[in-house]
Parts: sequence; structure tokens; C-alpha cells
Amino acid sequence: MDRHVSLLTLAVDDLDRAVRFYRDGLGLSTPGIVGREFEHGAVAFFELRGGLKLAVWPRASMAAETGLGVSRSGPPDVTIGHNVDSRAEVDRVMEQARHAGATIVRPAGKVFWGGYAGYFQDTDGHVWEIATRSGQ
Amino acid sequence: MDRHVSLLTLAVDDLDRAVRFYRDGLGLSTPGIVGREFEHGAVAFFELRGGLKLAVWPRASMAAETGLGVSRSGPPDVTIGHNVDSRAEVDRVMEQARHAGATIVRPAGKVFWGGYAGYFQDTDGHVWEIATRSGQ
Repeated sequence: MDRHVSLLTLAVDDLDRAVRFYRDGLGLSTPGIVGREFEHGAVAFFELRGGLKLAVWPRASMAAETGLGVSRSGPPDVTIGHNVDSRAEVDRVMEQARHAGATIVRPAGKVFWGGYAGYFQDTDGHVWEIATRSGQ
Repeated sequence: MDRHVSLLTLAVDDLDRAVRFYRDGLGLSTPGIVGREFEHGAVAFFELRGGLKLAVWPRASMAAETGLGVSRSGPPDVTIGHNVDSRAEVDRVMEQARHAGATIVRPAGKVFWGGYAGYFQDTDGHVWEIATRSGQ
């Protein structure tokens, strides 16, 4: 396998709400919901850096396409890390997420590996870690 | 929030087994398990393209750090997409994963959006989609 991950897809309960959270709340850009013409096709893509896209896709669609059943929100088994350049930026992103409707799981603070980080959950329970190695 | 996702962390039941799967089975490079000197610190990082790292981290450590409880393998609520250049390459990666101990969730075939894709689960139930838009 080569080393290119191109798409990270998050299962969501409510596609419109997820688009509002990531687009309006966190400021990620998206052409909006596409693919409504296909069964299980409705999805929204957000462009990230490095050729990576984030997608939000209804839980029922993911279940239908994988055949693995419908997920429920629960303890996370994946976290998504977003590295920033300063502690102030960690604080700013955590506040932006809270304002957008995220649940603050662990407020930003010093962590065991020497950095400064906080965790939040999006409106569907997906966990993001906002972190910096900077001491400033 | 800017658009840089830097780390994707997968919770695993057995760190050594996960390292064998991704390093020996799928051929991703890693310096191996680091951070054993910290409580909840043991982790292995794999370098991907575009500045993204993949990490495997014990479920108990993720639970302790997030405070959200220990996840169990179940229906996926995240899928990780790996785009390749041809149908033959999709087939090759799916076979490599199967040989490495992955469970084939959906054999590679034509999908609704016009591409060709398959899904597998790693040894901890994380779901990868190997896909191409190529008609070849």
C-alpha cells in the first residue's frame, strides 16, 4: 500500500447539521451536499490541506455501503488530530468549536508528551484533538 | 480552524499486532512503538503523504486521555479512504490487506459513483476503502 490517505469519512445522524457544524461553525469550505441523485449518495466534502478531504455521510448510508450495520455514537475508536502553532491558537479553535455546538471533552491544558492540547466532540460524537508542541 | 489534519489515531486492542499489520502487512514505515515511558504513552506512528501521520494507540489509553470510556469494535462510524490509480491497484491492495490478516468487508467492484472500490477491516475493525476513479 502506498502512503496516501485521501478521504476521511465521518458517519453522521443529520447531514445538514454536520454541514452547518463544519462549514459555518468551523469555517471549512465545501461545495455543499452532493450526490442526492444516488441511493446512499448524499454526502458533503470539505477540502483539507495535503490532498486530504473530509466527508460527512449519513450513518445509514455508511451501513448500507459497508454492510456492517449502523453505528451509534459511543466511546471513540478514532481521534482526528489538528496541530496548530501556538497555545493561543489551541484555545481559539477550542472556543470556536464550543461556539459551533461541539462538546468540550477535555479543556486545553498541558499533556503528558509535553505539549498543550484539548479534545472536543462534534455534533455526532467524533473526537478532535487540537494540539501544539509550542511552549508559547 | 485552518484546514490541516495532521494525525489520525486508531484505537487498538493489541499494539504489537497493529504494528505488525500496518508495518509488516501493509508496508507502512514506522520507527516502532515509542512513548512507553509515559502512562498511556505507548503508541506507534506511521508516516503518510501530505504531512499526515497515522497512529495506533491502545483503546485503554485513548479512553484514559479522553475520559470517554473504552471503545469496542462495532459498526464503523469512520472510514479511511485510500485512492489509487487503477482497478488493478485496488485489487492488489485488497489482496495485500487480506494476506496481512484484514477482513474483506466488501470485495472490490463497481460502486454507485462510477468508480471501483472495496472495503476491508484491519485487525481492530477499522474500515478502509480502497478506491479508484479510473475505468482501467
